[in-house]
Amino acid sequence: MRRLMTAIAVLCLCASVSGQELANFARQQQKVVSPEIQGDSVTFRINANYATVVTLSTNWLKERQPMSKGMDGIWTVTLPLPEPEIYTYNFTVDGVNVNDPVNYMVQRDGTRYLNMLFVPGERSANYFEAEHRGTVQYVWYDSAILGINRRVAVYTPYGYESSKSKKYPVLYLLHGAGGDEEAWSSMGRAAQILDNLIEQGKATPMIVVMPNGNPNQQAACTMGIANTEMNYRDPAFANAYVRSLCTEIVPFIEKHFRAISKPASRAIAGLSMGGGHTMQASQLFPSLFDYICPLSMGAAPTDESIAQLQALKADGYKLYFLACGNTDFLFDRAKQLDETLTTLGLEHTFYVSEYGHEWRNWRLYLNTFAPLLFK
Amino acid sequence: MRRLMTAIAVLCLCASVSGQELANFARQQQKVVSPEIQGDSVTFRINANYATVVTLSTNWLKERQPMSKGMDGIWTVTLPLPEPEIYTYNFTVDGVNVNDPVNYMVQRDGTRYLNMLFVPGERSANYFEAEHRGTVQYVWYDSAILGINRRVAVYTPYGYESSKSKKYPVLYLLHGAGGDEEAWSSMGRAAQILDNLIEQGKATPMIVVMPNGNPNQQAACTMGIANTEMNYRDPAFANAYVRSLCTEIVPFIEKHFRAISKPASRAIAGLSMGGGHTMQASQLFPSLFDYICPLSMGAAPTDESIAQLQALKADGYKLYFLACGNTDFLFDRAKQLDETLTTLGLEHTFYVSEYGHEWRNWRLYLNTFAPLLFK
Repeated sequence: MRRLMTAIAVLCLCASVSGQELANFARQQQKVVSPEIQGDSVTFRINANYATVVTLSTNWLKERQPMSKGMDGIWTVTLPLPEPEIYTYNFTVDGVNVNDPVNYMVQRDGTRYLNMLFVPGERSANYFEAEHRGTVQYVWYDSAILGINRRVAVYTPYGYESSKSKKYPVLYLLHGAGGDEEAWSSMGRAAQILDNLIEQGKATPMIVVMPNGNPNQQAACTMGIANTEMNYRDPAFANAYVRSLCTEIVPFIEKHFRAISKPASRAIAGLSMGGGHTMQASQLFPSLFDYICPLSMGAAPTDESIAQLQALKADGYKLYFLACGNTDFLFDRAKQLDETLTTLGLEHTFYVSEYGHEWRNWRLYLNTFAPLLFK
Repeated sequence: MRRLMTAIAVLCLCASVSGQELANFARQQQKVVSPEIQGDSVTFRINANYATVVTLSTNWLKERQPMSKGMDGIWTVTLPLPEPEIYTYNFTVDGVNVNDPVNYMVQRDGTRYLNMLFVPGERSANYFEAEHRGTVQYVWYDSAILGINRRVAVYTPYGYESSKSKKYPVLYLLHGAGGDEEAWSSMGRAAQILDNLIEQGKATPMIVVMPNGNPNQQAACTMGIANTEMNYRDPAFANAYVRSLCTEIVPFIEKHFRAISKPASRAIAGLSMGGGHTMQASQLFPSLFDYICPLSMGAAPTDESIAQLQALKADGYKLYFLACGNTDFLFDRAKQLDETLTTLGLEHTFYVSEYGHEWRNWRLYLNTFAPLLFK
């Protein structure tokens, strides 16, 4: 109402404006709603009166969706609502990708920003905010191995601050190539998933540590990336990040947070490249983690990995949870790892889901394995 | 090199592609650099082969800048480099605002995303990362006054985690209308400014608390905003946020962080609406803060404010730092406050800068007053 009054007041001041200008002004005042979920459909809209071709790209439909322009200059497309999940989309205006100007829910995947569409329902219920919420903090640790200081995201569960003595188990949760220390808490909804599972009594209250898995990167979106002259193809730096994780980050966390320093209270999980890091960490440091969850990753057996997995079996562990989508381009590698684990007699779960190498799977996996940890 | 090999491999697979398709493919492979600072100029580029009109908008030039299209479909404009600072910009492609697809440095101002241009130099030196960095964490507190739980950003200085007993003074740093608890750490570069000032020995190591000043908002970018039915125009809720800040957030911080619980170790500062909150907090709770810094705000005197300021004077304080830009639309109100303080005999600094109601001033002010706190 106040906005309308202002509009009228401004219009009264401009006695000389033309009909077209008035129409333009009215359109600017009009509030575009996008995306709009109504029943089992969703409508996307963008005000682009001077554009020639506008389309919608989504991550749940392969084809770009044509949009049609209304008399008001607003382009629209209505689609069947996809099943409950979090999706991404953007528009293409005359060949250029554009985010939805009226949807402030935006995710950053590496260097790429995309709008998010939240479809509520049973599958996505834990991706929304719980009533009781933990803290997410961004802490810096010094890495002697990598020669730089680096940022780590740490989730502490609701109640961590108020109980001054209680100690917690720790999940180390690793991102994929192109990701960084913010990936799991933004796209992965890790804090919301843990908040919900803990509130529902399904997961043990735990600390979740989300490091940056790019060894020459200090942090996401910083101006300076130090130490770029370190050559990670040099064998001297083999597994440098995994060594930093296991011998620098784990001790740092156990020193500065109220963490239980026992293998039975340490879990490691990671997707894609982070699944590779999970496998390496559990094989190079077999006594460190009792819970091991590679996601959307796997490997053909080698003499070295067979020996390492036999050592891991001898050392003992509590859970080996391997997960992959049945259309993932790495599904064959996950099946190879599953077979190797079976052949070598390592007890494990091979959790196969629909879909491919994507966040709707990684959120689902976290929501599935987190209740199995530290029990 | 690997990208080129892939490109060649893909091209070999497509024997039937036309010359135009090859040209398109080559263009897609080509890396657009934007923004590019060279000497005393800066160039912006966007690949938009099918667009009709492309312009650049910046926050340091009033007019939209025309861009010109090259044979390669890339639109370009080169401008004189503005003085060292952080600026924002975006493109307009056929009437639609578009962020720079190759610049991942993006700020969110309320619901609006804009690209950032960092111009290095003496004035902006403290806005870049220091060597030693503090932690930024997002904590939740329960507000009985506002009836919701709410997110607060808390900066703890480098060394906070490693010293287990040292206590710190606290700066409460408030945002303006349209902002939220992330505004000061993203647009305001609060963590970088404090890291640098502390590292240089110019500022006392301190905790910085950045709450969300919108009383019905739980947090930035959450799906649910609770308690929207609370009517903040109802006199019963007058100053509800300031009361929550002073009687809920301050005790919460002093309970859960190693904060010194004394007026001489508490500072309050805020910009625009947060400057109003700063004035209200210092006037309604005159014993709470010994350092008071309203930024880009002020007020004509009223009987009530005169009485409150006299009480503040009687109670005593250590610093009253009022700052405003000389083209700020609130400059007259700041001058009125300056005059009232002078008339009433309250010792204070009136720091007048160039420019208006904008972040380049608020970063400058924080960088200027933080060294004066807790001395």
